[in-house]
Amino acid sequence: MPILVMKFGGTSVADLDRIRNAAEKVRTEVDRGYDVIVIVSAMSGKTNELVGWVNETSPLFDAREYDAVVSSGENVTAGLMALTLQEMDVPARSWQGWQVPLLTTSAHSAARIEDIPRHNIDQKFAEGMKVAVVAGFQGLSPEGRITTLGRGGSDTTAVAFAAAFDAERCDIYTDVNGVYTTDPRITSKARKLDRIAFEEMLELASLGAKVLQTRSVELAMRFKVRLRVLSSFEDSTPNSGTLVCDEEEIMESKVVSGVAYSRDEAKITLVTVEDRPGIAAAIFGPLAEAGVNVDMIVQNISEKDYDDHPGAVTDMTFSCPYDQVARAEKAILDAKSRGQIEFSDLVVDKEVCKISVVGIGMRSHAGVAARMFAALKAENINIKVISTSEIKISVLIDRKYMELAVQALHDEFELEKSS
Amino acid sequence: MPILVMKFGGTSVADLDRIRNAAEKVRTEVDRGYDVIVIVSAMSGKTNELVGWVNETSPLFDAREYDAVVSSGENVTAGLMALTLQEMDVPARSWQGWQVPLLTTSAHSAARIEDIPRHNIDQKFAEGMKVAVVAGFQGLSPEGRITTLGRGGSDTTAVAFAAAFDAERCDIYTDVNGVYTTDPRITSKARKLDRIAFEEMLELASLGAKVLQTRSVELAMRFKVRLRVLSSFEDSTPNSGTLVCDEEEIMESKVVSGVAYSRDEAKITLVTVEDRPGIAAAIFGPLAEAGVNVDMIVQNISEKDYDDHPGAVTDMTFSCPYDQVARAEKAILDAKSRGQIEFSDLVVDKEVCKISVVGIGMRSHAGVAARMFAALKAENINIKVISTSEIKISVLIDRKYMELAVQALHDEFELEKSS
Repeated sequence: MPILVMKFGGTSVADLDRIRNAAEKVRTEVDRGYDVIVIVSAMSGKTNELVGWVNETSPLFDAREYDAVVSSGENVTAGLMALTLQEMDVPARSWQGWQVPLLTTSAHSAARIEDIPRHNIDQKFAEGMKVAVVAGFQGLSPEGRITTLGRGGSDTTAVAFAAAFDAERCDIYTDVNGVYTTDPRITSKARKLDRIAFEEMLELASLGAKVLQTRSVELAMRFKVRLRVLSSFEDSTPNSGTLVCDEEEIMESKVVSGVAYSRDEAKITLVTVEDRPGIAAAIFGPLAEAGVNVDMIVQNISEKDYDDHPGAVTDMTFSCPYDQVARAEKAILDAKSRGQIEFSDLVVDKEVCKISVVGIGMRSHAGVAARMFAALKAENINIKVISTSEIKISVLIDRKYMELAVQALHDEFELEKSS
Repeated sequence: MPILVMKFGGTSVADLDRIRNAAEKVRTEVDRGYDVIVIVSAMSGKTNELVGWVNETSPLFDAREYDAVVSSGENVTAGLMALTLQEMDVPARSWQGWQVPLLTTSAHSAARIEDIPRHNIDQKFAEGMKVAVVAGFQGLSPEGRITTLGRGGSDTTAVAFAAAFDAERCDIYTDVNGVYTTDPRITSKARKLDRIAFEEMLELASLGAKVLQTRSVELAMRFKVRLRVLSSFEDSTPNSGTLVCDEEEIMESKVVSGVAYSRDEAKITLVTVEDRPGIAAAIFGPLAEAGVNVDMIVQNISEKDYDDHPGAVTDMTFSCPYDQVARAEKAILDAKSRGQIEFSDLVVDKEVCKISVVGIGMRSHAGVAARMFAALKAENINIKVISTSEIKISVLIDRKYMELAVQALHDEFELEKSS
């Protein structure tokens, strides 16, 4: 039998009615001829409740105990899902991480999957079981303790199972019906994509399109697992949702697939920094230690000459999340007071956002950047920082122009039309 | 190090404050020089919530899935208790049933403990761990699935650990501060017992004194585990609560240790039943199949002669819980309509209660029954049914006399005085 992996997130299993709804979708796939591995999250809210208890009990908690507590939410859903399927006469049983076993490293709360031996589940499929319901987000350490996989762990569990069992596809059921060319709340012209390449999905995920966690997409790309994102709350056909797949499966891709944004950014500029080898490390080392997520970094070459700073100087600009500005400023001023870096001024702009266009088609099409900048200029939007990768161009602009910029770029690249 | 087992029930770990309170008691015992095994229940209400979900999902549930779901409550408490102890600088870790492992039969939802290998926990004690926090009520089947032990499972877990680890004592923390001579709500003269014999505790437990589950007391008796019942909500000294122990540890026992009652009983009499071999089986077989918990059974010899029933006949009386009367009547009438039993009349008395006096001293003292009956007669209380065992005498009386009877017997046997 071909194997299908289906993953249901917290909102898709929030109560018994929704679990029943999800189970109906599983039965549909069994009826289509699949042996199914279902990965479930905790009922929504449950994990937060458990995390809250742990934090209140022990602010600097033992991660092994955290994992033992927090993993229990998924176990409840797995058992209830198996029971619901049995009520529908679908042969099913639940598996906790240690029962599979899903073997991980010992890095509690952020463990990495090492191996998923197929034997136990394969044997049950051979005996007539049609659905293995697996508690997501959890595994077993070499020491025999329960681990959890960290943020996005259930998506990652699903992809890892799909890879281990050579699944035909890994369907991620969520509360949106696919990946869009941009946020539909910003422009009604936003269009659901039928297919998107792994690389594009990765850029979109890291840019704040919160449909899939980066880690699960990376894993899917590595093992060429075809991922489908679709809604738990709509009837699904074999073509529902968005398929995240290898570039080769996408016949004719557009130059740009989507426009992403990130609202709460800040821009920090260090003015007249000494331009010498090692200066970047001297600045970004302390920021990393302070836990600041530095995103874009731009170094403007300048050749100003000051009386007290003869020689080459430069301006260094970087962006980080809005709410990390205070921490970033402190790290930099501390480094300055320790004499590690020198600069004349620290300029903070908290009123910026990031807009990105993403597309694997960019690789073979010149001029995408020029079109993007022209479209923004036509709306009189000033670009503050530019950063590019092979399949992405990002700019920082004033936050107040965010919606306007997204709409303008969506129009410019004609994303409302299917390719 | 001597080992102590401490068990905390649901109300004793109902929230984080109570878990902290329980952890303080554990630390006190560690400070006294014990290595401690703590058995925890689910936070009160949690197991009922999980059971409710299972029942709503699947009325005829797969007990293996029921166990997987329902056991999760204890896992949460175990992790939180371990974290709380760590916060107090007490080296502790949690263990789920399968991690110990606590090995059971495959009788899901009512599994029996087969073995508790000491190796894993002993090794951690040897490495300096002071407290093993074990999730109660759960174990591992030979098939590698999670089992639960059924009603009273956490008490049973505690006693089994105490037996396996040769613990000096097994302390059961609950919401009462010990075992009383009778219910203090019925007479203010009720006195807390310092010690009570296993046999007496068994009779009291089965008679409705809900301090300890029968099963855990049986297990303690078999392995001579000294059990102590005490309150989570009072400061404990080494002499707090009530010690349930071997008869030999009780120096001078009174003739009667306690007066128990069971309020909601019913009495059913089958009038003029044919008195022949096999008639008891013909009556009580169908009752057992219908799930009626028959308690007392009395067969009155009578030699009535009826026209249509020549030969020996008898009246058969039994008691059962009040709320099982309808089921009992149906089972008997069905058996009659199938021709399995015959009788002239079925008389139901729903207004009775059971009063029992219990004491190992009875074995060596004659006349206890006579004193009991005389004390009831002095209050003009009519006795409807009598049943005796080696250390117990029970009677059924009108429910309206229940409090009066308990008070009269408590006085008669001078239970307010310590022995």
